[in-house]
Amino acid sequence: MTKGEQTRRDIVEKAAPLFNQKGFEGTSLADLMQATGLQKGGIYRHFSGKRELAAEAFDYAWERAVRGRLDGVADVPDGVDRLKKTIDNFVERRAGLVPGGCPLMNTAVEADDGNPVLRARARRALQGWTERLSRITAEGIQKHQIDRSIAPRKLSQLIISSLEGALLISRLQNDEEPLRAMRQHLDEYLEQSVRAKLHPAG
Amino acid sequence: MTKGEQTRRDIVEKAAPLFNQKGFEGTSLADLMQATGLQKGGIYRHFSGKRELAAEAFDYAWERAVRGRLDGVADVPDGVDRLKKTIDNFVERRAGLVPGGCPLMNTAVEADDGNPVLRARARRALQGWTERLSRITAEGIQKHQIDRSIAPRKLSQLIISSLEGALLISRLQNDEEPLRAMRQHLDEYLEQSVRAKLHPAG
Repeated sequence: MTKGEQTRRDIVEKAAPLFNQKGFEGTSLADLMQATGLQKGGIYRHFSGKRELAAEAFDYAWERAVRGRLDGVADVPDGVDRLKKTIDNFVERRAGLVPGGCPLMNTAVEADDGNPVLRARARRALQGWTERLSRITAEGIQKHQIDRSIAPRKLSQLIISSLEGALLISRLQNDEEPLRAMRQHLDEYLEQSVRAKLHPAG
Repeated sequence: MTKGEQTRRDIVEKAAPLFNQKGFEGTSLADLMQATGLQKGGIYRHFSGKRELAAEAFDYAWERAVRGRLDGVADVPDGVDRLKKTIDNFVERRAGLVPGGCPLMNTAVEADDGNPVLRARARRALQGWTERLSRITAEGIQKHQIDRSIAPRKLSQLIISSLEGALLISRLQNDEEPLRAMRQHLDEYLEQSVRAKLHPAG
């Protein structure tokens, strides 16, 4: 990594918590200068503008979120248990996130009536996460662990919607209970309605 | 209503879609002047500042949202069907909202790392909505329509979390499907796990 690339990376890492906590509009140049210890010229030598920096910061924050949510998932042999593990990671691993909560939620809400660059990044992030869960589900169906009537994409969206909503409510109430209750609800749903009833020999 | 009160009300009504779409930070004085047709002095004669105006605008937008979500609910005799009606209203009645989507979600996300005035309004709104659904549930338990093992507050939070999350995903994807799928999921859950199994004679 060249010195310029390293500086660029440093700026992104330091900007990410600001954008994730204060939003695109709420993050000022003064905030960015204070966090990075650089002057305006020192920051924007590396980016075409605030939008590009915010987009890179989103990708950085999202990558960390995804890594935490998928941690240990590949080691779990059963498809339903894999989905439960991603839910568990979502509920428990919030300490590993860039401060400010789920970057997808923050960016989706702020960008939904403007800022097409950030909106496109958030949509791509959602699509990627949906595809990850869909692959786990499809594989579980193939292995007769998940009921074949389940539509992978629909189930993935349901899980993501449920977790993001519970996170929103938990954060607003400053109380983990809605997230824990949602995990319990989803776990019961997965056991009762998603897990294959019969396990025919492979 | 005095002329001053009417002007204040007009400002709030015109400011509400701006704050709901662009957020507190994203709404400029120029935006507010353009929407109201007033100069700065004409606006801030009626409010102590942008925070007070945004808080009033939130309450206005939220009141419209709640009215839409409770529309026709009191006419439904059964407790489970009442909950299903509020879910249906949430999924279908979005046209009646102030533009920009659910004010609770927008304000909760923007205010979660700052802006304590708006955060307090969003918390109060969530509390009020939770209490409404909890009362419907408690009444349903009393009338033996809802299983007595159900905790009203927990069920209310689950419904609210699920709907807000599905709305987030639907808006990001610009696609109603996640909201409709969530309604179907909640309806099935209410029928299978919330509706009382036996109906002892009153």
